[in-house]
Amino acid sequence: MKIRSLVTGGAGFIGSHVVNHCLQMGHEVVVLDDLSGGFEDHIPAGAVFVQGSVTDEQLVAGLFAEYKFDYVYHLAAYAAEGLSHFIRRFNYNNNLIGSINLINESVKHKVKCFVFTSSIAVYGAGQLPMREDMIPTPEDPYGVSKYAVELDLKAAHEMFGLNYVVFRPHNVYGENQNIGDKYRNVIGIFMNQIMQGKQLTVFGDGEQTRAFSYIDDVAIPIAQSVNIEGAYNQVFNIGADKPYTVNELAKVVCANFGVTPDINYLEARNEVMHAYSDHSKAHGVFGEGSGVTLAEGIARMATWAQRVGARQSKEFDNIEINEKLPQGWAPKVEATVATNV
Amino acid sequence: MKIRSLVTGGAGFIGSHVVNHCLQMGHEVVVLDDLSGGFEDHIPAGAVFVQGSVTDEQLVAGLFAEYKFDYVYHLAAYAAEGLSHFIRRFNYNNNLIGSINLINESVKHKVKCFVFTSSIAVYGAGQLPMREDMIPTPEDPYGVSKYAVELDLKAAHEMFGLNYVVFRPHNVYGENQNIGDKYRNVIGIFMNQIMQGKQLTVFGDGEQTRAFSYIDDVAIPIAQSVNIEGAYNQVFNIGADKPYTVNELAKVVCANFGVTPDINYLEARNEVMHAYSDHSKAHGVFGEGSGVTLAEGIARMATWAQRVGARQSKEFDNIEINEKLPQGWAPKVEATVATNV
Ligand SMILES: NC(=O)c1ccc[n+]([C@@H]2O[C@H](COP(=O)([O-])OP(=O)(O)OC[C@H]3O[C@@H](n4cnc5c(N)ncnc54)[C@H](O)[C@@H]3O)[C@@H](O)[C@H]2O)c1
Ligand SMILES: NC(=O)c1ccc[n+]([C@@H]2O[C@H](COP(=O)([O-])OP(=O)(O)OC[C@H]3O[C@@H](n4cnc5c(N)ncnc54)[C@H](O)[C@@H]3O)[C@@H](O)[C@H]2O)c1
Repeated sequence: MKIRSLVTGGAGFIGSHVVNHCLQMGHEVVVLDDLSGGFEDHIPAGAVFVQGSVTDEQLVAGLFAEYKFDYVYHLAAYAAEGLSHFIRRFNYNNNLIGSINLINESVKHKVKCFVFTSSIAVYGAGQLPMREDMIPTPEDPYGVSKYAVELDLKAAHEMFGLNYVVFRPHNVYGENQNIGDKYRNVIGIFMNQIMQGKQLTVFGDGEQTRAFSYIDDVAIPIAQSVNIEGAYNQVFNIGADKPYTVNELAKVVCANFGVTPDINYLEARNEVMHAYSDHSKAHGVFGEGSGVTLAEGIARMATWAQRVGARQSKEFDNIEINEKLPQGWAPKVEATVATNV
Repeated sequence: MKIRSLVTGGAGFIGSHVVNHCLQMGHEVVVLDDLSGGFEDHIPAGAVFVQGSVTDEQLVAGLFAEYKFDYVYHLAAYAAEGLSHFIRRFNYNNNLIGSINLINESVKHKVKCFVFTSSIAVYGAGQLPMREDMIPTPEDPYGVSKYAVELDLKAAHEMFGLNYVVFRPHNVYGENQNIGDKYRNVIGIFMNQIMQGKQLTVFGDGEQTRAFSYIDDVAIPIAQSVNIEGAYNQVFNIGADKPYTVNELAKVVCANFGVTPDINYLEARNEVMHAYSDHSKAHGVFGEGSGVTLAEGIARMATWAQRVGARQSKEFDNIEINEKLPQGWAPKVEATVATNV
């Protein structure tokens, strides 16, 4: 019998690539995605698509009963870290309760391995580089929800023997990214702004650094992890090693679109200035990665972005707390002001 | 104008005492409790009672708009730690999402201080004694949900200036405890079993130790914390210092009912063997405590329990995972077998 995998968030950026690699490994793949942030046409041909939410416990239970999955790749999440302060309830419901529905069914149906995309957001603003043997202390609701899922998986492993692999990627970019999401993914935001002839917008002075990671360096290890016993019940940082400032990044992106950087610096948000991870643990288990440089990865993504064109950003309508909402994030009226400057 | 306080879980054990102390401090008190584990007749006269759940976001928003609370004491929770493995979704929904509703409204309405009863369950099985400067790593869903709320409060403080006080009590006992809850509170369980002429049931060999804490040593500091600036945005272990084994405890309880201990040792559960906290931080801020000894506290509680009589345990009906459910915890049929031995 064929190996059966569930990929939640499979219409999303990283998820659609994971589906692709799972199909290549010969898996039968079911995608569960509510299309809140993904696109149906990103789902690779050959996967079964079920439109719905991981928060729908009945739907989730029905899928597990029907398909008896061997593996679960849980990527569905609303990942706008900075926005999570203002949408706390939505964040915990979508990212934690949704995950718990999947963990419950995975225990009940004896899934062989549960692969979860956490985030470096769990670390908080601690020492650098971030290493897996540090005890996380997340500092925003998004990070808290991801860390709670990690801890719950560990508890489920210890109590019920459910195997898991946790990945903590950071700032991934590449083809199929939702470049129309104004709340996150600076690379996509830049490309979208350039294609609309707008100024680039940056929170703060642009000297914050991130190690931007090309999608292959993330999606391939995620997909393959179920085959690697040594990865089981482990946590891995995953992604690129070299940090760049947002200003440096802007230059690389602009170069690929033949424009000169023209940046509108907005008030700094409450975010960590520098973030980069130690990936030696992942390299030891999954190998050295694709070797795709930032210049090359951005070039590939730019080619794709120019083909698909600019996207309108969806507004997140149900803001729970409006106080201190960063410039450009308030729904409707104000938003157009800030992003059109 | 009078100070207005919301006490969630005010019909419960610790909550009803906190309400009492708040009334004594001159607060106007609103109790929000769904009576899932509490009793309406435990709510002290003089408090306004609203029956409903903290998970009901509309109800919660309405209460904050109506009463404009100065302080929120959030004690409502389903606290059966051992059971939380088997009711994961319920646990996170009740204990985390419910808390988030309150945090959201407290930010929006500029509550002056949010007092939260966390638990030593956040620590996990680490070094002893447990100290507040250790980084928690909870090991069960109950502990994870409590820790997530702690972290969320810290994030809300840093982002929005919401003040909080977090208490981590442990094994509290005293008058108004729900002695009919078979899932937790060994002292109540013992008293209930004795009054029904049943054998005492103990998980494991009874040599696990806990520092059982008399209610005054917990409820009084909780109530008073809002008046103590030095307590703001701090975390406190709270409760008794001296650990006892469950077997020693059984002797003290039986002595108060004039019976000889007769114990049915059940298979050990997945729980920490020893748990006791360092309380020097709390003593520094709140003073030395009531000085009530275990013998004296148990005597007071026994007098109360004999007056109110034995209680039938409510079954928790919506078990999500049945695998590995400890003896006596399965709903209906099996339960009566195990607890009637
Ligand atoms: N992209 C990054 O840099 C990054 C970094 C760290 C972690 N992650 C994590 O990786 C995962 C994938 O992120 P991504 O960048 O591909 O984001 P994405 O938004 O492109 O993909 C997420 C997908 O999940 C779907 N989804 C959201 N909520 C859902 C729900 N309740 N039910 C079903 N589907 C739902 C969305 O429609 C979307 O297709 C997420 O868990 C995210 O937290 C991403
Ligand atoms: N008793 C202990 O030893 C102990 C130890 C550590 C932490 N705590 C914490 O202290 C708090 C009080 O515990 P307790 O021992 O008094 O328990 P309890 O069960 O007597 O009180 C909890 C109260 O909350 C109510 N409640 C539960 N869910 C609710 C909901 N969704 N909405 C509204 N009301 C709800 C119950 O009806 C009950 O009256 C809890 O948060 C618990 O986790 C207790």
